[in-house]
Amino acid sequence: MSKVITPQEQDYSKWYNDIVVEADLADHSAVRGCMVIKPHGYAIWEKMQQALDKMFKDTGHVNAYFPLFIPKSLFEAEEKNAEGFAKECAVVTHYRLKSDPQNKGKLIVDPEARLEEELIVRPTSEAIIWNTYKGWIQSYRDLPLLINQWANVVRWEMRTRLFLRTAEFLWQEGHTAHATKEEALIETKQMLDVYAHFAEKFMAVPVIKGVKTANERFAGADDTYCIEALMQDGKALQAGTSHFLGQNFAKAFDVKFANKEGKLDYVWATSWGVSTRLMGALIMSHSDNHGLVIPPKLAPTQVIIVPIYKGEEGLQKISVYAGELKKRLQEKNISVKFDSRDSLRPGFKFAEHELKGIPVRIGIGERDLENGTLEIARRDTLSKASIKMEEAETYIEKLLEEIQTNLYNKAAERMKNMTTKVDTYQEFKKVLDEKSGFVLAHWDGTSETEEKIKEETKATIRCIPLNNPEERGVCIYSGKPSTQRVLFARAY
Amino acid sequence: MSKVITPQEQDYSKWYNDIVVEADLADHSAVRGCMVIKPHGYAIWEKMQQALDKMFKDTGHVNAYFPLFIPKSLFEAEEKNAEGFAKECAVVTHYRLKSDPQNKGKLIVDPEARLEEELIVRPTSEAIIWNTYKGWIQSYRDLPLLINQWANVVRWEMRTRLFLRTAEFLWQEGHTAHATKEEALIETKQMLDVYAHFAEKFMAVPVIKGVKTANERFAGADDTYCIEALMQDGKALQAGTSHFLGQNFAKAFDVKFANKEGKLDYVWATSWGVSTRLMGALIMSHSDNHGLVIPPKLAPTQVIIVPIYKGEEGLQKISVYAGELKKRLQEKNISVKFDSRDSLRPGFKFAEHELKGIPVRIGIGERDLENGTLEIARRDTLSKASIKMEEAETYIEKLLEEIQTNLYNKAAERMKNMTTKVDTYQEFKKVLDEKSGFVLAHWDGTSETEEKIKEETKATIRCIPLNNPEERGVCIYSGKPSTQRVLFARAY
Repeated sequence: MSKVITPQEQDYSKWYNDIVVEADLADHSAVRGCMVIKPHGYAIWEKMQQALDKMFKDTGHVNAYFPLFIPKSLFEAEEKNAEGFAKECAVVTHYRLKSDPQNKGKLIVDPEARLEEELIVRPTSEAIIWNTYKGWIQSYRDLPLLINQWANVVRWEMRTRLFLRTAEFLWQEGHTAHATKEEALIETKQMLDVYAHFAEKFMAVPVIKGVKTANERFAGADDTYCIEALMQDGKALQAGTSHFLGQNFAKAFDVKFANKEGKLDYVWATSWGVSTRLMGALIMSHSDNHGLVIPPKLAPTQVIIVPIYKGEEGLQKISVYAGELKKRLQEKNISVKFDSRDSLRPGFKFAEHELKGIPVRIGIGERDLENGTLEIARRDTLSKASIKMEEAETYIEKLLEEIQTNLYNKAAERMKNMTTKVDTYQEFKKVLDEKSGFVLAHWDGTSETEEKIKEETKATIRCIPLNNPEERGVCIYSGKPSTQRVLFARAY
Repeated sequence: MSKVITPQEQDYSKWYNDIVVEADLADHSAVRGCMVIKPHGYAIWEKMQQALDKMFKDTGHVNAYFPLFIPKSLFEAEEKNAEGFAKECAVVTHYRLKSDPQNKGKLIVDPEARLEEELIVRPTSEAIIWNTYKGWIQSYRDLPLLINQWANVVRWEMRTRLFLRTAEFLWQEGHTAHATKEEALIETKQMLDVYAHFAEKFMAVPVIKGVKTANERFAGADDTYCIEALMQDGKALQAGTSHFLGQNFAKAFDVKFANKEGKLDYVWATSWGVSTRLMGALIMSHSDNHGLVIPPKLAPTQVIIVPIYKGEEGLQKISVYAGELKKRLQEKNISVKFDSRDSLRPGFKFAEHELKGIPVRIGIGERDLENGTLEIARRDTLSKASIKMEEAETYIEKLLEEIQTNLYNKAAERMKNMTTKVDTYQEFKKVLDEKSGFVLAHWDGTSETEEKIKEETKATIRCIPLNNPEERGVCIYSGKPSTQRVLFARAY
């Protein structure tokens, strides 16, 4: 490998960055805060998209596409939403460049091509979509609208980090319109469940489902539901959000419908999204000092076959054997590649595939041909086993399932161990500093206390977990009575 | 239906717009020149994407994602490219809004948040990609790079038309890097063939492959190859382009590689793209006064089943029968829906599915249950047939193929009839005005003549067809000698 990964223990943040760059997932670009998603990273994102898109369609949603730009007058229509995003908006003001008269071969913005109204590059699309829905919704017969969009969005972040926080990122945003509050609430929760299912079953990342406090709510929402995951370093990461928007956008854009009784009412709304940030969650849930670890269900290549040979003839013999194996694995819908590159040593290839996180590596040497065997290495545990060629597809199919389960179990065990109940503020701070992770503590329910705690400890309320047991206690900060614990953590 | 489509004969342009809007393909948005791609339109675009993406991957390409924004200094690096796009660039100049002190609840662009360097919203991505490739390419071992990107781009067009010419559109752009000129040329032509195959086999649109004249070349290319299609109204439409970029971008961004001999050389480049413009080509190749006609291979729903019944009990009986039929069709990988909406009459449904272009409609009445029959209507010819239920899946599978072929043949026949050889300028103008279509004529090879003809007749040279027979003649305009005919047309 061209470069060794900085060990987690030495510098977690550098470790993360090394993995992203060295495993060919993404890289910084010439544009401040924007990343290039490299082919290996994009291939994993495509696997995520496919799985999510299928779940969206299975729950009755369709895809559409709305403009990248939002005229300022529309953007500011829903005041809270506008206020929430105003400070991080990229703004298009001109529509033409011209030759620089002072500087041959250079261009300047043409001052005569100033837009009458500035255009905001979408940080989220509620405004442009609800302005469109106004034309699509007249009666209850037009409802529900269940629409999703795969798109890029821009939020001008000052401190950026590959995948976790970038000025431009890729995401999907669902925007639904309903005749009743109840139906919109059901949708909001349904999509939260879809996200939780995806995180746990595909990403092998356990999550806590909950609802945000008023402070942490999406700008313009009545309620924000979220899934929160815990990274290896004990910091939380918000992995997806589903918003109940009430009638806020319908009122801002005057979207009314005639109900069955012919009475006009404002439409109820939800929106929900996950982004390339999930790539960060994936990396920080499973990877190690050897590089990336990808759960089999999201691995573009699940199995890599590496020949170990001497001379042209050796390679040829192994190629026939590997071809047979490849065919048998493909028949089981396992994605497999044969790494026949002749210019690289097997050891180099092993390290590269380890770095890139391929779940299963099969080594085939000339002795394996004689014995009818294969050497199997799993990426998650780095353990090896020799198996018989004839049992290959059954063994590997099971192994992939086992790796998927093992990654989830390991992450779930870690989350369990890193979740601590505390009853005093002193204990709270001690846990945050010495152990980190999720901290369950009583809170008096006020924004004031929440902000004080954040100021003093950098921990935020990640969510009020759903199905939280009722429990009488006192707020760790104010000592005021509380009826349930909430989930605190320092977060990405 | 809510609205009747304006007949083609009456106003072709209005007919086109009616189809796009009424068949729920796309609509104008609140943003000047930008469209909303509606769910039915987006579903067809997704089918196109899937087919193309598979072909790209089958030819060894991988997907990646590069930033939406291009810093001005990078944008202007390749001078011809910059000059070609400068007049239609959306420019981001600020990164923050703030409250308007004059106007409560309104926002203004924060003058203090002016970018040090303006960002261009990508009209095409050569600049940002080649600036990135510089970091990825050192030696011949890093080549070829075969990368594609699915993205949105913005070109500030003054006169826009849904799908055909919009300020923002969706596309894919392939950007490849090669060690030799020969390899880059092979790639350029390979991707042209991929596009031609897609147009003919999936879209059922016959195309002429050719190379552009210097005048019509992509800004920054040494050669632009294209596929040209002919619409029903006799106007040409450029459906895809594949550019041989020579070493222009490598030189502009200083991208050199060490070849096998260790000598440094500039990298050779290609780029190629198709866009949502293809939706326009699809619509204008097959649709009629009843609405859209979709070739089966790109139809999100290939078969729609409509029950014709009286009362709840009637519907229930038909549903069982339809369910059985649906299952049998799905086993043949045919996408099928059962339209059980109870509030609409069959006649209304028939018209709606016709308008939306579903290739095959199956009507099931109570008498069909008794007789074990189905009524099949094909969208392309509007003809009907009664068939036996037991032969349904075989019949329909064959019928879908037949419709696909028939649409292609009809379009090919039209293109043949609408391609005219002329030998004088007078004849040339007469054909353009009275018959329209493609006109094959001799041209002296100068840009001057080409521009004069364009000025006087609005016809442009669409391409110099590949494998053009050599034929001695004289230029219709200048009378100078010529060795081949070129393809003229008025175009979208």
